[in-house]
Amino acid sequence: MLALFFEKGRARVKEAPRPKVPKGLALVRVVASGICNTDLELKRGYHGFSGIPGHEFVGIVEGPKGSSWIGKRVVGEINLACGKCGMCRHRLGRHCEKRRVLGILGHPGTHAELLTLPEGNLREVPPEISDEEAVFTEPLAAACEILDQVAVGRGTRAAVLGGGKVGTLCAAVLREAGAGVTVVGRGGKARPGSFDLVVEATGSPEGMPRAISLVKPRGTIVWKSTHHAPARFDAAPIVVNEVTIVGSRCGRFEPAIELLRKRKVDVRGLLSAEFPLRRAVFALREAGRRGVRKILLRP
Amino acid sequence: MLALFFEKGRARVKEAPRPKVPKGLALVRVVASGICNTDLELKRGYHGFSGIPGHEFVGIVEGPKGSSWIGKRVVGEINLACGKCGMCRHRLGRHCEKRRVLGILGHPGTHAELLTLPEGNLREVPPEISDEEAVFTEPLAAACEILDQVAVGRGTRAAVLGGGKVGTLCAAVLREAGAGVTVVGRGGKARPGSFDLVVEATGSPEGMPRAISLVKPRGTIVWKSTHHAPARFDAAPIVVNEVTIVGSRCGRFEPAIELLRKRKVDVRGLLSAEFPLRRAVFALREAGRRGVRKILLRP
Repeated sequence: MLALFFEKGRARVKEAPRPKVPKGLALVRVVASGICNTDLELKRGYHGFSGIPGHEFVGIVEGPKGSSWIGKRVVGEINLACGKCGMCRHRLGRHCEKRRVLGILGHPGTHAELLTLPEGNLREVPPEISDEEAVFTEPLAAACEILDQVAVGRGTRAAVLGGGKVGTLCAAVLREAGAGVTVVGRGGKARPGSFDLVVEATGSPEGMPRAISLVKPRGTIVWKSTHHAPARFDAAPIVVNEVTIVGSRCGRFEPAIELLRKRKVDVRGLLSAEFPLRRAVFALREAGRRGVRKILLRP
Repeated sequence: MLALFFEKGRARVKEAPRPKVPKGLALVRVVASGICNTDLELKRGYHGFSGIPGHEFVGIVEGPKGSSWIGKRVVGEINLACGKCGMCRHRLGRHCEKRRVLGILGHPGTHAELLTLPEGNLREVPPEISDEEAVFTEPLAAACEILDQVAVGRGTRAAVLGGGKVGTLCAAVLREAGAGVTVVGRGGKARPGSFDLVVEATGSPEGMPRAISLVKPRGTIVWKSTHHAPARFDAAPIVVNEVTIVGSRCGRFEPAIELLRKRKVDVRGLLSAEFPLRRAVFALREAGRRGVRKILLRP
């Protein structure tokens, strides 16, 4: 099968053996996969990654023989958990100590013709959701995670820092939950100390000092950005104003699928382009350009 | 009256006019005041402070004439709030935007023979609590604040970083709430990723990276340290492990008074020495030496 590979900081599309399918895992033919900023970070050597990247996809289940999943159109949760540790027992497989992560850590990813994933990770895609929309399930679930972590409702004054894909999805989810949302892009203005909730989704070390200046005393900052450079900021306002900072990563797929199905969040405007998988190296470069939003690969 | 003054980085004990007592404020004769690390920071020019420092005290109310408080032995909450703003209306006068703070911001402090404070800030000291113990009400309330912010109970595995006064009080309060507590001093060892709750009370920028290494995924770090140097750490584990960081400062006095009255927290071991107020400059130097804990001043 054809697949994108990262090796020693280089990206290359090449033929690879058809994946083996261990017991309990399903074989999925990828219909479309999405390029995430994390892929670009992995290419630069983040986590010392090598192999097939990609963790956003929609596909059709092809195996194993006799599986009740065969023929279904699916998306899939990205963490492959052990199912036995303390975190797994608390239904927090996303934090399993021994987890592998689709296209990120120890398990080949979605920028390929075929992938494998435990059947327990699969979620069927309702017919109301198009393939292009379904690829957004994973990043939208990450945005929905905020609602599992922080109380948000009518009357919540929220600011989202960063007008990229993550920021845009977070803003949409918060609006749908009833919050008043101000999206603050690079150089954008907003009143200091006036927000109950600030989502830091800039992907840059400059985001946190900005978030600290905008949040109210006793308010909450949701931290979505990961970046290589260490965070550096004056800690005193966090302590003096008793601000809470909540790290936020992946989320459950169910709420995201529901939002897409009812089109309460419309992700179609976030799609910038589609490329065939064999042009993935070019597509990656495109995805890295400022202003470009989601890019899909089609095997 | 005699009082300690900080001016342009220098400390000096000198005669000062008897304080004026605006309407609504009580006049209190200080029996004992405690030197806090914040006083040492203020002396170094933190907040551009000048005036009479000190915010931990026990005293006897002397005025105004006719007040029902006269003759009572009291401690006092340190934030002088406007009573009208959004924070005040939510009973969060400690975060009032216009607040003055006893001996820290815009209101003369406790290292003097007399002080003034709104009657609403006063709390009567029960007879079971000695003067020396009563001076610990304010820092103990700050430790109790953790219980108002974070769920702690039997089964909570907590680590406290920093074996100083703040750390010791936090550890005592967490133990009393049922947590299993490990105090981790400088160079002390503890198992990484194994604590539900980590209290960062080192007073140093090295504390936060340490706290991040010790906390479990989805765990909580309570940030008690304020320090001049900016915080600097790798943010990725906060986001990936969805850690919550809670800034924590002052607390309500009631729970602290209750703990002292029932001697559930015994603060007497934290007392290092007492000095007369006229020797305050020497006492400040003593308070800054490694290993010295609480130092009291007696007018």
